[in-house]
Amino acid sequence: MKIIVIGATGTIGKKVTVALKTKHEVITAGSKSGDLQVDITSTTSIEAFYKKVGTFDALVSITGAGHFGPLPTMTPDDFNTGINSKLMGQVNLVLIGQHYINPKGSFTLTSGILDRDPVVNGANLSAVNGALNAFVTAAAIELENGVRINAVSPGVVEDSPDYFDTFPGHIPVTMDRVVAGYEKSILGAGTGKVITVS
Amino acid sequence: MKIIVIGATGTIGKKVTVALKTKHEVITAGSKSGDLQVDITSTTSIEAFYKKVGTFDALVSITGAGHFGPLPTMTPDDFNTGINSKLMGQVNLVLIGQHYINPKGSFTLTSGILDRDPVVNGANLSAVNGALNAFVTAAAIELENGVRINAVSPGVVEDSPDYFDTFPGHIPVTMDRVVAGYEKSILGAGTGKVITVS
Ligand SMILES: NC(=O)c1ccc[n+]([C@@H]2O[C@H](COP(=O)([O-])OP(=O)(O)OC[C@H]3O[C@@H](n4cnc5c(N)ncnc54)[C@H](OP(=O)(O)O)[C@@H]3O)[C@@H](O)[C@H]2O)c1
Ligand SMILES: NC(=O)c1ccc[n+]([C@@H]2O[C@H](COP(=O)([O-])OP(=O)(O)OC[C@H]3O[C@@H](n4cnc5c(N)ncnc54)[C@H](OP(=O)(O)O)[C@@H]3O)[C@@H](O)[C@H]2O)c1
Repeated sequence: MKIIVIGATGTIGKKVTVALKTKHEVITAGSKSGDLQVDITSTTSIEAFYKKVGTFDALVSITGAGHFGPLPTMTPDDFNTGINSKLMGQVNLVLIGQHYINPKGSFTLTSGILDRDPVVNGANLSAVNGALNAFVTAAAIELENGVRINAVSPGVVEDSPDYFDTFPGHIPVTMDRVVAGYEKSILGAGTGKVITVS
Repeated sequence: MKIIVIGATGTIGKKVTVALKTKHEVITAGSKSGDLQVDITSTTSIEAFYKKVGTFDALVSITGAGHFGPLPTMTPDDFNTGINSKLMGQVNLVLIGQHYINPKGSFTLTSGILDRDPVVNGANLSAVNGALNAFVTAAAIELENGVRINAVSPGVVEDSPDYFDTFPGHIPVTMDRVVAGYEKSILGAGTGKVITVS
């Protein structure tokens, strides 16, 4: 299987990439790192990226920024950070990528726990995650040629200790379980699923 | 109670407005209609609107457009319709309005059934509704001075027969139940709730 991993040098992406590489051809990408470069906040960059990659069987997105900060001082521009990057970046990978992916291919996006279990300062990422989860359930009923789509929604991960204070009482999820979530989406048969990892 | 209803001339808004007016001071607003005008897609317009209204006890948003159309031909620009109007319009009513609302006031936003029960052509509105629902759960834990926030999430409503063919097998919800959902949010004590109306 030819699998593209966007965000392959990130905390989660690097563990997923190692696991996938044992059995598959993996093309890694990031805005600066990876085999190929793509900036998910630019539709021009996404279009050029797919043209360069050619056809593929799975697109795995493990990237996207959001605004983290207090609601009382949050501005519309702050909020747009997550909308333009983590939300629209990933949605546009699908809207554009549906014209390049092989039949029976799959899209795997990354959301996260904050839509179902919010933390202080996290309103932007909560909204973004809720949007991504709903998007995959809806997109799944319309993607053509047997193409599947899921979101992996992990809790705070054990390899991100800097986040632990921000997530009081959250039990960090092990990287093995996170990797398994992506494997379920990419190698399983489900579609329209939010694969929660806890 | 001084209550602002944005979208007060709409299918849902007009029924909610009639019910609220029996016991409360209601200020109606729309982009063209109502006592005052506001364009929720413009932060400048929202800021000017709140300055004109002065303090208030409840902001009820029953408005916001989205893109409705097939996923295989949906473009990033199409998708931005719902992001800029129904999602960011309503989020910005809260981000800006939190600085004008009275202590113990409330925000009530409108999402809809599509995040939990998608239909063909609805991927944009599914994402927007999912974002709004998650946003209220997160914003509720950070709003200050006892200010509350909820989302009302109705199924397709009985007064919108033009939508029925688009929602096969969905049972239209009665306007009485829809109005009750808004009353629960505005006049009840809950916060961070998604009030589903079915
Ligand atoms: N860490 C957690 O605990 C956790 C928990 C739940 C959900 N998540 C979500 O999982 C995703 C990844 O998180 P992470 O902690 O692994 O992130 P990370 O360590 O910050 O890594 C981000 C990755 O994305 C790439 N990237 C950044 N901006 C990009 C852009 N504009 N276009 C393309 N690629 C870009 C980076 O490579 P370049 O530097 O080359 O761009 C890097 O490979 C995020 O959506 C995050 O919200 C994380
Ligand atoms: N109808 C349904 O079955 C249903 C079901 C579930 C959820 N919803 C949601 O409920 C909300 C209202 O739906 P509806 O069917 O009642 O809508 P509608 O009949 O189209 O009414 C829209 C209202 O919003 C106002 N409006 C439009 N654009 C605006 C803008 N940019 N700024 C401020 N006000 C604006 C309009 O007044 P002006 O013309 O003066 O701008 C009008 O009062 C929408 O978010 C919709 O997605 C509807």
